[in-house]
Amino acid sequence: MTEPTAEKAKSSFTQTTTPLFLRAATGELTERPPVWLMRQAGRILPQYRALRARFPDFKVFVKTPEAAAEATLQPVDELGVDAAIIFSDILVIPEAMGLDYEMVEAKGPRFPKVIEGKGDIEQLRSGHAAAGSLEYVFDALKIAKKDLEGRVPLIGFAGAPWTIFAYMVEGGGSKTFSRARRMLYAAPEAAHTLLQKITDTTIEYLKGQVASGADLLQLFDSWAGELPPEHYRIFAIPYLQQICEALPDVPKTVFAKGAWFALEDIGELPCEVVGLDWNIPPAFARARVGEGKVLQGNLDPCCLYAHPDVIATETGEMIRRFGRHHIANLGHGVYPDTPLDGVRAFVDTVKSFSW
Amino acid sequence: MTEPTAEKAKSSFTQTTTPLFLRAATGELTERPPVWLMRQAGRILPQYRALRARFPDFKVFVKTPEAAAEATLQPVDELGVDAAIIFSDILVIPEAMGLDYEMVEAKGPRFPKVIEGKGDIEQLRSGHAAAGSLEYVFDALKIAKKDLEGRVPLIGFAGAPWTIFAYMVEGGGSKTFSRARRMLYAAPEAAHTLLQKITDTTIEYLKGQVASGADLLQLFDSWAGELPPEHYRIFAIPYLQQICEALPDVPKTVFAKGAWFALEDIGELPCEVVGLDWNIPPAFARARVGEGKVLQGNLDPCCLYAHPDVIATETGEMIRRFGRHHIANLGHGVYPDTPLDGVRAFVDTVKSFSW
Repeated sequence: MTEPTAEKAKSSFTQTTTPLFLRAATGELTERPPVWLMRQAGRILPQYRALRARFPDFKVFVKTPEAAAEATLQPVDELGVDAAIIFSDILVIPEAMGLDYEMVEAKGPRFPKVIEGKGDIEQLRSGHAAAGSLEYVFDALKIAKKDLEGRVPLIGFAGAPWTIFAYMVEGGGSKTFSRARRMLYAAPEAAHTLLQKITDTTIEYLKGQVASGADLLQLFDSWAGELPPEHYRIFAIPYLQQICEALPDVPKTVFAKGAWFALEDIGELPCEVVGLDWNIPPAFARARVGEGKVLQGNLDPCCLYAHPDVIATETGEMIRRFGRHHIANLGHGVYPDTPLDGVRAFVDTVKSFSW
Repeated sequence: MTEPTAEKAKSSFTQTTTPLFLRAATGELTERPPVWLMRQAGRILPQYRALRARFPDFKVFVKTPEAAAEATLQPVDELGVDAAIIFSDILVIPEAMGLDYEMVEAKGPRFPKVIEGKGDIEQLRSGHAAAGSLEYVFDALKIAKKDLEGRVPLIGFAGAPWTIFAYMVEGGGSKTFSRARRMLYAAPEAAHTLLQKITDTTIEYLKGQVASGADLLQLFDSWAGELPPEHYRIFAIPYLQQICEALPDVPKTVFAKGAWFALEDIGELPCEVVGLDWNIPPAFARARVGEGKVLQGNLDPCCLYAHPDVIATETGEMIRRFGRHHIANLGHGVYPDTPLDGVRAFVDTVKSFSW
């Protein structure tokens, strides 16, 4: 597939053999799909819960590079996944831009102040001036990269601009994100200004992540599915395009949850991997993104509550449905109360598969 | 289209001319699409807010037939929509089955006790034994039907079995409904037993609604989009099929939010109308449900926050994209804080349209 990126991905690694995850992500045919889980560095692991207990404040945890690096490595040690993903939060970007948030236990994020209009947007920092305050993430990446000792690649990530925008305007999670979506109709120019500021910041942030050791970058567009197709084309795709173009030296994954209607556009982005949620049949996605992308996903996270035999069967079926050019994952972040045995059954099934 | 249903729909009406909404719903070519809004009997109307203020407890409001009938008629008087929908709640079904719920202001429903397994399911009432306790809805329908004096048809409704199941197992709204979805993997037989009990109750309930004056029935599958396609085929479609088959005498609408992946199956249900959320392009839906259905929807509810000129433009575009055999509506319930002028711009644009 995209040979220059593949070459760069390999050269940034120290081993003689390029790791399975990066070979798959850059379009090589691999002996089996690599496997990792979104939110693998989290509550499913007893080690994580013990580490987390040392930090009453979630944000202090995120901002302590040694702790974040430790959480990053735990699933590699415990589950044997084929990639690590840096432990962090997509909301470090709004905070770096000047919009502080609180993490409310068992409820999620809350922004005491939200973006209501032009004046608020003008006051935000952006680009390097904002991303410069995220050294703690870069430090965590450097420690994790060193401690991994080349065992598996390290994934960096950020929220996609629309999703970050949604939080900044809405002020937290929401069933409808109607406040954020309203701005797209009622004040489209202001919306574009904010999306551009988020994009500029995200690009600098991700450049810093690559400089600190990230081998692949994933963009999470968690609220993609809230937009009508026309709005996704206008308010999401162009900013994803800018980010992908600005980071030619590493493979990139775009995971736009619920954006089944935008797969043709996502297929044209200069990214290597497209993440899929559990609603999207692999054949539907392949027909729309074309042959030039690797697909990632998409087992229903709820499947991991089933008996290990059921998990093994469903995982095997999923792999066969995707066929080659596939990275095995769930269709969303693993749910925090998933039994560890279920997670293991998933990982082990993929690792024992062979084409 | 389905001539027998069309004939019955007409004969149940007293006017010499069959109303626009029923003509469109039964497949006639109409001079313009009829228009109504999901959740039109609600907070968008000052009259509703005044009426609601007289009932501190939402459930007492729902159970007072005169009040429910009054709320049902308000949008007909105030907005001039082409159909009324009975003011009620989909959660009257779990309550009738023996699972009580509370409506927590600004938060939504909460079930103090949830369904955890076989024992809980066995204890539930179902069928006529459950639906018999819903006389207050039938009374509200009778009053509303009388007070409408044949001006517009009256829509009855119920939640689809999967959505009711989701609330009964989850215990309330949820970001993921992972608890409800878990049962589909971990205890599929128990899940089917519960879904059948809900279905039996819903059929009796809807028969009672038709006997009380409902001219069309809509099934709301609000959480359809949480299921993987295979599960929707196994745990949702067969129960929708049973309900549609049991009610041959009125036209029926199936609105499965987020179920873009199931449109072929929904297209084969013996219903007349298929509701669409705002993610689904009309042409995508038409290609999948076939020519034999009327489509309903699907303007983004957030569009009604825009300037009336924008609303008029977007509404006109939507109508043209759907073409004939279309009932104009939003892609979801109207958001409670939508400006009344925005709602009016939507309704008036549809009403002034002409093919």
